[in-house]
Amino acid sequence: MPYIDVDKNLPGIRSLMAFRPETAKPLSDLAEALLRDNTGLSRAERELIATYVSYLNDCFYCHNSHGELAVCYLDGNRELVDAVRKDYRNADISEKLKALLQIAGKVQQGGKSVLPENIENAKRHQATDRDIHDTVLIAAAFCMFNRYVDGLASTAPKDMSSYPLRAKQVAENGYGPHIYSTAQPQASSEEIHA
Amino acid sequence: MPYIDVDKNLPGIRSLMAFRPETAKPLSDLAEALLRDNTGLSRAERELIATYVSYLNDCFYCHNSHGELAVCYLDGNRELVDAVRKDYRNADISEKLKALLQIAGKVQQGGKSVLPENIENAKRHQATDRDIHDTVLIAAAFCMFNRYVDGLASTAPKDMSSYPLRAKQVAENGYGPHIYSTAQPQASSEEIHA
Repeated sequence: MPYIDVDKNLPGIRSLMAFRPETAKPLSDLAEALLRDNTGLSRAERELIATYVSYLNDCFYCHNSHGELAVCYLDGNRELVDAVRKDYRNADISEKLKALLQIAGKVQQGGKSVLPENIENAKRHQATDRDIHDTVLIAAAFCMFNRYVDGLASTAPKDMSSYPLRAKQVAENGYGPHIYSTAQPQASSEEIHA
Repeated sequence: MPYIDVDKNLPGIRSLMAFRPETAKPLSDLAEALLRDNTGLSRAERELIATYVSYLNDCFYCHNSHGELAVCYLDGNRELVDAVRKDYRNADISEKLKALLQIAGKVQQGGKSVLPENIENAKRHQATDRDIHDTVLIAAAFCMFNRYVDGLASTAPKDMSSYPLRAKQVAENGYGPHIYSTAQPQASSEEIHA
């Protein structure tokens, strides 16, 4: 059960955003700028980085929500998303993305865990400064989102069929204010604290 | 030396924000909404939470920048800010703020480290749901900002007299776009990687 009095019809971060719209706006703007951009890194690659970091942080709601976004952008290839979660080094992705996921994993541990050799490795595989910037900020941002979601014990739908539905909405409409509007499809009444 | 090619005349997060204005805008809007609000928690209390989390994350640039903001709002009481950094339990602050700093410290470890008894303790000391929400989100946001700053090895001025100067600017003008404009006062040429 959430630690504060939020709308129980909204899942995860959406309930927290509805509770405090003043901070919801910059949070959703940040997600939009970081995850919907297609320069250098594709939307699928950005969501894979978000999913991987959320998985490392053991944030059930976030790694499932963003994992489903990645599945959407990868034309339904859920196996690839699972492979990135569990063992990206052996997943069927580019060497550049592997090098960036290594950096993301370091950021998850702490900023100072990122070493010059991790950056050199990414650059050797054609990562640009902007790719590296965006990877570090996506990973850092999910260290925030994950802590926000779980630190307030927000609820995560247990009904796994709700995640692809919401992912489709975000893939089509972005991370705008609709994601924390109570007018959107409601979460399952059966919820778990993830 | 920073891992990406940023403006060397800007310190810490300001150099990263100038590199990528699309993400700088929501990041500074988030800081403005969370740290300049005065409802429930004062600006000084908000900056103390930010400073404490940045200190736990060993982010030299952030804990000094936000520590100086707190000093500003506390009419120069640097001893109190140092006391909160090092041993808040024995600092001359309210029991409510101590309970919220305990929650912030848990968030720094991870979202799931926050336990029901930590929340009950804060409520017992008159913390509202909004106070708890803002504490968790400030702590989570600094787990992002700290990782962003150190994960890209941005530079932190070694000249400690520059921190109070920049803090005064932010106290007066907020976290607007001026904080990453190159037209603002420049960092010391002597810099360290913090």
